[in-house]
Amino acid sequence: MIEPRILEVRTKILKKNDELAREMRERFVRAGVLVVNMVSSPGTGKTAFLKQTLARLVARGEPCAAVVGDLETDNDARRLAESGAPARQIMTHGLCHLEADMVEKHLEGWDLAALRYLFIENVGNLVCPTSWDLGESVRLALLSVTEGEDKPLKYPGLFNTADVAAITKIDLAEACEFDRARALANIEAVRPGMRVFEASSKTGAGLDEWLAYLAERRRAIAGAARPADGRE
Amino acid sequence: MIEPRILEVRTKILKKNDELAREMRERFVRAGVLVVNMVSSPGTGKTAFLKQTLARLVARGEPCAAVVGDLETDNDARRLAESGAPARQIMTHGLCHLEADMVEKHLEGWDLAALRYLFIENVGNLVCPTSWDLGESVRLALLSVTEGEDKPLKYPGLFNTADVAAITKIDLAEACEFDRARALANIEAVRPGMRVFEASSKTGAGLDEWLAYLAERRRAIAGAARPADGRE
Repeated sequence: MIEPRILEVRTKILKKNDELAREMRERFVRAGVLVVNMVSSPGTGKTAFLKQTLARLVARGEPCAAVVGDLETDNDARRLAESGAPARQIMTHGLCHLEADMVEKHLEGWDLAALRYLFIENVGNLVCPTSWDLGESVRLALLSVTEGEDKPLKYPGLFNTADVAAITKIDLAEACEFDRARALANIEAVRPGMRVFEASSKTGAGLDEWLAYLAERRRAIAGAARPADGRE
Repeated sequence: MIEPRILEVRTKILKKNDELAREMRERFVRAGVLVVNMVSSPGTGKTAFLKQTLARLVARGEPCAAVVGDLETDNDARRLAESGAPARQIMTHGLCHLEADMVEKHLEGWDLAALRYLFIENVGNLVCPTSWDLGESVRLALLSVTEGEDKPLKYPGLFNTADVAAITKIDLAEACEFDRARALANIEAVRPGMRVFEASSKTGAGLDEWLAYLAERRRAIAGAARPADGRE
């Protein structure tokens, strides 16, 4: 069990993280960049989903970039860079989540104001990333059809703190005997009213809706960044 | 980043856990029960694999039991009990791994000497459970064909500390375009010589080999529990 001592130290570190994340969020909004923090289990297909998202944004001339967390390898950044968007790897060397200062360090040299979208692909983990604010405006919880419909009930922390969810690998739904109605009901039970995208990085299903959602969220950010009277 | 203070507190707690786990392991071996700690990502199919394992052991008249960790629900213990073996849920209320004292508490009232196999299904997480010894004799790392072949490289901590691995959901291998050779090579790269079972809880493939392995490991334990001269 977690002892009071460790809880106290942990609370202080989380508080420091939250303060930095708040500063970062203000900076992101001021720059007019929509920041999305993507959280899921390992193997949900975050990287494939993000690569498809980046490739479509690049094709539309929308400046975008990604940072991706992983324990040991830089495989994911290499895969993402194939989309044509810049991508940087954050190696956590065993740490099971990203923290705000890791993200901040990996943004150095990028002109945020020149970007419209920045994606942060978190370490594959349904538990620990939940507690760490990275300054994002949108937290996306991903769940694949291969994982079982009860994940939202088992990991309510993630689904409670998410703004939006994606069900990935829907091309495998039949092979996995995925119970779509039950999965949606379970998400609804934990986070009533949350929008859910049903997507396949293989067939492209659901990606247009997801991109339309991102554009809409970005317009809200850009509106906040440049008030009507033109003051910065 | 983790600060020195938290590292120091964490080290002390881990040390306490290790001491208890060592005691528990001695107790398990003395009772002649083989204890298996199952670790994987959420959604790998640990519960389905364990349920099939228990049902087969029950059918063979082998006394076995399970404890299963989860953040919030007792769904898994209910599913496992359908096998005919006793199963207890450990709810961690947000903690991302099991610790030795949680397992110990949930064994109360069970006669260990009457069991041959005890399975501990850890919380779905590829990172945090790695550091926590639960007194097991066998640590099983599970990976499903839907998760991508590079998991062993991305989560070397788990595969390094595991005794044996299982690739699950092989009935979906074709639908997922699973690259078997690459997955096996990646496991081999991280943990040379580790035995790997390729299994499907749906078709039953690989389960006989897995049960034969368990029986062999249990004979080694039982031999240690009752030395040739009959002394306890």
